[in-house]
Amino acid sequence: MVRIAFFGPQGTFTEQAARVLAGGEELFPVETIPAAFEAVRSGAADGACVPVENSVEGPVTATLDSAVDGDPLVAVAEALLPIRFTVLVGADRDPVADPPRTVASHPHALAQVRGWLGEHLPGAEQLVASSTAAAAVGVLDGEYDAAVVAPVAAEHYPLKTFATDVADLADARTRFLLLRTPGTLPEPTGADRTSIVVAAANRTGSLAGLLTELAMRGINLTRLDARPVKGDYGTYRFFIDFEGHVTEPRIADALAAMRRRSMSVRFLGSHPRADGVTATIEPGAGNDDFVAADAWVEAVRKGELA
Amino acid sequence: MVRIAFFGPQGTFTEQAARVLAGGEELFPVETIPAAFEAVRSGAADGACVPVENSVEGPVTATLDSAVDGDPLVAVAEALLPIRFTVLVGADRDPVADPPRTVASHPHALAQVRGWLGEHLPGAEQLVASSTAAAAVGVLDGEYDAAVVAPVAAEHYPLKTFATDVADLADARTRFLLLRTPGTLPEPTGADRTSIVVAAANRTGSLAGLLTELAMRGINLTRLDARPVKGDYGTYRFFIDFEGHVTEPRIADALAAMRRRSMSVRFLGSHPRADGVTATIEPGAGNDDFVAADAWVEAVRKGELA
Repeated sequence: MVRIAFFGPQGTFTEQAARVLAGGEELFPVETIPAAFEAVRSGAADGACVPVENSVEGPVTATLDSAVDGDPLVAVAEALLPIRFTVLVGADRDPVADPPRTVASHPHALAQVRGWLGEHLPGAEQLVASSTAAAAVGVLDGEYDAAVVAPVAAEHYPLKTFATDVADLADARTRFLLLRTPGTLPEPTGADRTSIVVAAANRTGSLAGLLTELAMRGINLTRLDARPVKGDYGTYRFFIDFEGHVTEPRIADALAAMRRRSMSVRFLGSHPRADGVTATIEPGAGNDDFVAADAWVEAVRKGELA
Repeated sequence: MVRIAFFGPQGTFTEQAARVLAGGEELFPVETIPAAFEAVRSGAADGACVPVENSVEGPVTATLDSAVDGDPLVAVAEALLPIRFTVLVGADRDPVADPPRTVASHPHALAQVRGWLGEHLPGAEQLVASSTAAAAVGVLDGEYDAAVVAPVAAEHYPLKTFATDVADLADARTRFLLLRTPGTLPEPTGADRTSIVVAAANRTGSLAGLLTELAMRGINLTRLDARPVKGDYGTYRFFIDFEGHVTEPRIADALAAMRRRSMSVRFLGSHPRADGVTATIEPGAGNDDFVAADAWVEAVRKGELA
């Protein structure tokens, strides 16, 4: 049976995502995001599930940094989860008669329910826990009165549900990736995402040049995140997601150009988009156009056409 | 006397930066980064000091988000602080005979001393506090045995210094901004930084187009960060820093082009760079070149030249 590591502990949104992405496989939690990558690199796991981006908080920086520190892994699938929290209290507490005086969660979770807490638990002190699930454990241990957690946490801990579907922004979402060692690529579907990380040369216009390679081929950028290169203040790597699949001629052509124009490029995967949005193909920028143009140049070189 | 709010509590790196940026003024701590912005917007403070970027952790997202939510503020100065931590223990503890069993700090601080802790306090449990200074308060209260803090914290809390100059990466740095309401701009120095936030149109090539406006004027990009637009999954704002000062013709020309090509632009300030690096000016892209070219076009329009 295939073993999939996920960024734990049990009872987090990442466990929920791992069930979506690898539901039939054996799932096991690891303590940190780097440990999830390491489990795959060392062979201890066949895959890993980690969060990559949240619509409120932005990129998950530990995931981006782990993708460049160590051997390459590639994303083969993604899941997009709505982030709606459950609030748990001790099994014996009547939260109406005896409202929680402290409420704990991961700082990102607290940031996403600040309005709800102000309205429903205005007197409660907000405390920081290392994960949403750790907050639930803290309620079990009597350390906190309430915890803001992922819905799946209610299955793992013998606590009482005080509220569900809690979120200040109705459409907050987190995107998760299933990572594996490079090998077989998922089949292209027409609604794919390709991810790379690029070290742009440190000179005027280098990033503009790289993005222009995508733009002039009509390839739509879906995300760009800069991360500082540790130990080298003022230099950055760029994590770039765009529409399309590396097996498509138009994408291969763009990748080769970016490889040539940058100091280094690492391929982070091509896989179907969870939202199913099909790629926009502009006139003259379809795969057939690239193949036909290459064929014409080849014929010109052979003296067959002009 | 001018009152400057800083992201507190007292005893953090932000207080150290505020002393550098507004040392002669009355400094007062506020609890959050949004509260520091709000203090200036409401008139409760004449300025605010907040962190904007760390060379290990990347952008300070609360600062970026606060810059777009609410009335415009502009950065008028910046400070670049080396991030080297002090480790404090209780005044009565002999840390050699009785090594700390728990050590607390802000998650970003813990991330930057992980190697040092593994070597010097291998058995200590690492606990998360809401700030480095809150960890020091926790040591005072007996909640933690040790705290990883900013050097200035040693002045505020009656604790014993266990170690100083603690940092896994020798050149970790954080950049801080002094913010004010728009009004007088700092004078250009030739070593300036201009910051804007841009909402790029959601179509293929829009970001490449904006960055090309800088590149073709020979203006060097120094930072680019994407932030998700809350409540609108898949759309982003771009925080862009580049060399130069808005009073320079070459910068004004680029800003006008970006204004025209984007859905919105907000000016976030032009001020001297803390590192004193002077702008690279490419041939044909100096201020005199822009002024002379405009004068020629004007003369052509009047029929005086051709």
